[in-house]
Amino acid sequence: MRLSNSYFFTKREDSKEEETVSGNLLVRSGMIKKAGSGIYYFLPLGLKVIRNIEQIVREEMNNIGSEELVMPSLLPEDVYVNSGRRDVFGNDMFSLKDRNERSYVLGPTHEEMFLEVAKEVIKSYKDMPISLYQIANKYRDEPRPRFGLIRVREFIMKDAYTFDKDLEGLDKSYQLMFDAYKKIFDRIGVNYRIVRASTGAMGGLLSEEFQAVTEIGEDTLVLCDKCKYSSNIEISEVKLNKKAEEEELKTKELIHTPNVGTIDDLVSNYHFDTDKMVKTLIVNVKGKLYACMIKSNRELNILKLSKLLDCTENDIELATEEEVEKATHAKVGFAGPIGLDIPIIIDQEVTLMKNFLTGANKTDYHYVNVNLEDFKYSLEGDIRNIAEDDICPVCGAKLEFKRGIEVGNTFKLGDKYSKSLGLSYSDADNNLVPVQMGSYGIGIARVLAAVVEQNHDESGMILPLSIAPYKVAIVLISNNDQDQVKVANEIYQQFKDEFIEVLLDDRDERPGVKFKDMDLIGIPIRITVGKKVADGKVELKYRDGSRAEDINIADIKDIIRGIKGL
Amino acid sequence: MRLSNSYFFTKREDSKEEETVSGNLLVRSGMIKKAGSGIYYFLPLGLKVIRNIEQIVREEMNNIGSEELVMPSLLPEDVYVNSGRRDVFGNDMFSLKDRNERSYVLGPTHEEMFLEVAKEVIKSYKDMPISLYQIANKYRDEPRPRFGLIRVREFIMKDAYTFDKDLEGLDKSYQLMFDAYKKIFDRIGVNYRIVRASTGAMGGLLSEEFQAVTEIGEDTLVLCDKCKYSSNIEISEVKLNKKAEEEELKTKELIHTPNVGTIDDLVSNYHFDTDKMVKTLIVNVKGKLYACMIKSNRELNILKLSKLLDCTENDIELATEEEVEKATHAKVGFAGPIGLDIPIIIDQEVTLMKNFLTGANKTDYHYVNVNLEDFKYSLEGDIRNIAEDDICPVCGAKLEFKRGIEVGNTFKLGDKYSKSLGLSYSDADNNLVPVQMGSYGIGIARVLAAVVEQNHDESGMILPLSIAPYKVAIVLISNNDQDQVKVANEIYQQFKDEFIEVLLDDRDERPGVKFKDMDLIGIPIRITVGKKVADGKVELKYRDGSRAEDINIADIKDIIRGIKGL
Repeated sequence: MRLSNSYFFTKREDSKEEETVSGNLLVRSGMIKKAGSGIYYFLPLGLKVIRNIEQIVREEMNNIGSEELVMPSLLPEDVYVNSGRRDVFGNDMFSLKDRNERSYVLGPTHEEMFLEVAKEVIKSYKDMPISLYQIANKYRDEPRPRFGLIRVREFIMKDAYTFDKDLEGLDKSYQLMFDAYKKIFDRIGVNYRIVRASTGAMGGLLSEEFQAVTEIGEDTLVLCDKCKYSSNIEISEVKLNKKAEEEELKTKELIHTPNVGTIDDLVSNYHFDTDKMVKTLIVNVKGKLYACMIKSNRELNILKLSKLLDCTENDIELATEEEVEKATHAKVGFAGPIGLDIPIIIDQEVTLMKNFLTGANKTDYHYVNVNLEDFKYSLEGDIRNIAEDDICPVCGAKLEFKRGIEVGNTFKLGDKYSKSLGLSYSDADNNLVPVQMGSYGIGIARVLAAVVEQNHDESGMILPLSIAPYKVAIVLISNNDQDQVKVANEIYQQFKDEFIEVLLDDRDERPGVKFKDMDLIGIPIRITVGKKVADGKVELKYRDGSRAEDINIADIKDIIRGIKGL
Repeated sequence: MRLSNSYFFTKREDSKEEETVSGNLLVRSGMIKKAGSGIYYFLPLGLKVIRNIEQIVREEMNNIGSEELVMPSLLPEDVYVNSGRRDVFGNDMFSLKDRNERSYVLGPTHEEMFLEVAKEVIKSYKDMPISLYQIANKYRDEPRPRFGLIRVREFIMKDAYTFDKDLEGLDKSYQLMFDAYKKIFDRIGVNYRIVRASTGAMGGLLSEEFQAVTEIGEDTLVLCDKCKYSSNIEISEVKLNKKAEEEELKTKELIHTPNVGTIDDLVSNYHFDTDKMVKTLIVNVKGKLYACMIKSNRELNILKLSKLLDCTENDIELATEEEVEKATHAKVGFAGPIGLDIPIIIDQEVTLMKNFLTGANKTDYHYVNVNLEDFKYSLEGDIRNIAEDDICPVCGAKLEFKRGIEVGNTFKLGDKYSKSLGLSYSDADNNLVPVQMGSYGIGIARVLAAVVEQNHDESGMILPLSIAPYKVAIVLISNNDQDQVKVANEIYQQFKDEFIEVLLDDRDERPGVKFKDMDLIGIPIRITVGKKVADGKVELKYRDGSRAEDINIADIKDIIRGIKGL
């Protein structure tokens, strides 16, 4: 591409709307443009990167015999009502009515539809395995769209589905897909970890996530270097590595604690020790209130709580201010177990504590030196997030926590959908048996965001060769120097002849502007054609800083060989 | 692709839901599947064809320097409110609210968004021309989705937009795009005509349509073989080729005509001559009623009427039964000009008639021998569709009428959108000047439907090589004959090595089933590997019937050369 007659722009100023490095750099480099909350255009430069990612995905899918199709986005709502997932998705699903008042939704994920497609060909056990995928838009009405391309409402997703006659087949199909995913993310150049996760709204037997490691990740990855345990924090089990505290039980005492509303206030105003405080959180589970007691510096884990209460995560909400005040007869911030007449669920860790502080169910009052003997609780269990001072639940070693962006996931669905939606086959004995399904996703644009989060410096993006929109940028220093123009064009043509995507910056701009732009948009290899052409030389610079030197023009062929060898 | 382990199915039975040949064949061949009214899946085989069409479009777009991007489908409604097009699209636009009650629509066409994108780079006259395109889903809430892929509610469209500094530039950009469109449809192998059309909801200076000629087309094309005049019937001007009738004026007479409601009844019950009858149609234009008089065997042209009344097509509706009865004091079917107290608009052709029949504004009565002297009219003009007995409005020769499916369109928008939405540039004298825009569309999936309508026989589709999902089908007669298996695999590999898409039907099915399936899905070239391999021969058959013979296996290379030479 010759920049002089192309659609191209960059912005020097940071975007005021983007809170992440990737969002900002992608907007500044003219790759994407915001169209609304969580909705983006892909401009020519950005679309090229997206297409490169899609191509890698497509190749690896085709390599394992998965076949591509495309589902509509606009779908009759009945599809999800019949599968029971209309309620599961709730407000996350965009819904609309057509001119005849019939209800439709914008597809958030397509299990139901793929199952219908599979029905067309699956009659007997001989008709499997089948593997199908699509690369298409998905829609979710995120409560808080944010982080550029990371949490959006219209997004490009590759979703794949496998259909097998038994669990053994499913294991095989799952493994094929799993290995393909590793290849995909390796080829793209993402730094990722694979963690176990909750099967969540998808249901099923197993869920694993491909998490791109970055500080802005919304997921917390719990990793053990020793035994390679890796898990999303949401399902990571807490194994206590301490015994009950050995302290003499004191008698509880009501103390006046005005002007505090939070744990932090208690610490800063009264110098209480967070290790000796227990917070009592009131939750509403399908209309019934429960009190959950966890140590003050821990986080309640709704998923674990839902399992303990045998309900779904969606069934659990934090109680409203009104509900809390009604239950505790006090303002929010003073809930405690003593005198509370709703069921109390206590985190296992709290059972080891002695002489701790709790709210007193009385505005501006707390109890100190509370002990288990002072109240009754209904349930005890692991209801908090694992923390960095916990040990590996498998081997007991020290854990490492990282933040991650989920860029891919793989689900062993089993027969959950095939049973409820009637996808069965005749086995060798002519019995009707439900099909075993797997479901697999990759967030195409989210991968781009993750790569940029992981690969940038103060000058801009540093894109991997595999997905860069152009592998090489030729910067022509002077449009008026005929030798330079000639050499630049010749080099440009050399790359073109080898089908290597190359950009020739022949704009009527100062060299500094050109260098800045090429750095910003992250082109991996820059070849500067300037005065040194007189000596048969051009300047070669790798965007990642690994190489910067003058080379003979004749050696361009080595660069080409290097790129093609990848 | 080896059919034995692929997603593949065909249906022997005609689809009950599809009223067109193309819809039926595409469903029967497992290329598409209906997901809802006007909503379809593209299954693997069908998606391959779609991708081939897209690829041809993409190549020709890139050849003329148009750059690809992608717009979101989910768009803030404001975008269309601000451009004034929210009302123009009306119920044709899908609209929805997000969880925060903000209004969104599903984009039916993207002029506004492309204009925003162009704003990023257009500052001065030096920044043009610019040409951009996308291939993406569009959404329209069609009142009557029908005809398989022809009139759907979610559809794949290539839309392109050009931006120029003046009309001369627009002419050039338009011509480039126009020529590219011809190449595209030629390469795909569509039989098409280019006709002038109404600028309609798009507005602008010029509209031309690429119409695929087929009997089920919803558009009527008016063509003159002599002067090459070609026009959509909606804008084709009527030039009268007759003089006023030379008849003595008779006196009008009220006649009793019970039990008739239509022109046809009058003809069959009373043997009136349609050439001597005038129908009076009552229309409602923004709340005001008008009577339109046209010859009984003509069709009212709402577009022409709207121009005469200086309003939009959407402003004009046929009056309701109630309105007609109120205006005529008679049941529907007896409207006429005499004694009517709403404005009368008369078609130019009627002014040449003498002694004609009209309704009498009295139930069960008509007047015969009515003449212009018998009533007053407000306006006279061309308000009917041109008919096959009319002459070419340009050269006066005989016309030919054809039916067409609009597969592409090109609009010279001029400065309509750039003015209303503020896309201007600084000219050489630093004056702000509005940009000249062009807008260009191709209905990707509709092209497929049109090709199938044009290319099929009783056995199924006959796809052109350019878009066929597989160029060659190798039918292996016996899986148990090792020689046959070996030869079939060798030939298969020969095509694979040349990157020619090839299908090997190695299913455990009878030859008849395989032949039927390959014919149904329209693969252009069939190579049957059967007993003749013993003599070094296979059977070659072209789906279009142009060739059927035994060839030496060694001559497969000629077939390959032939395909690659295209």
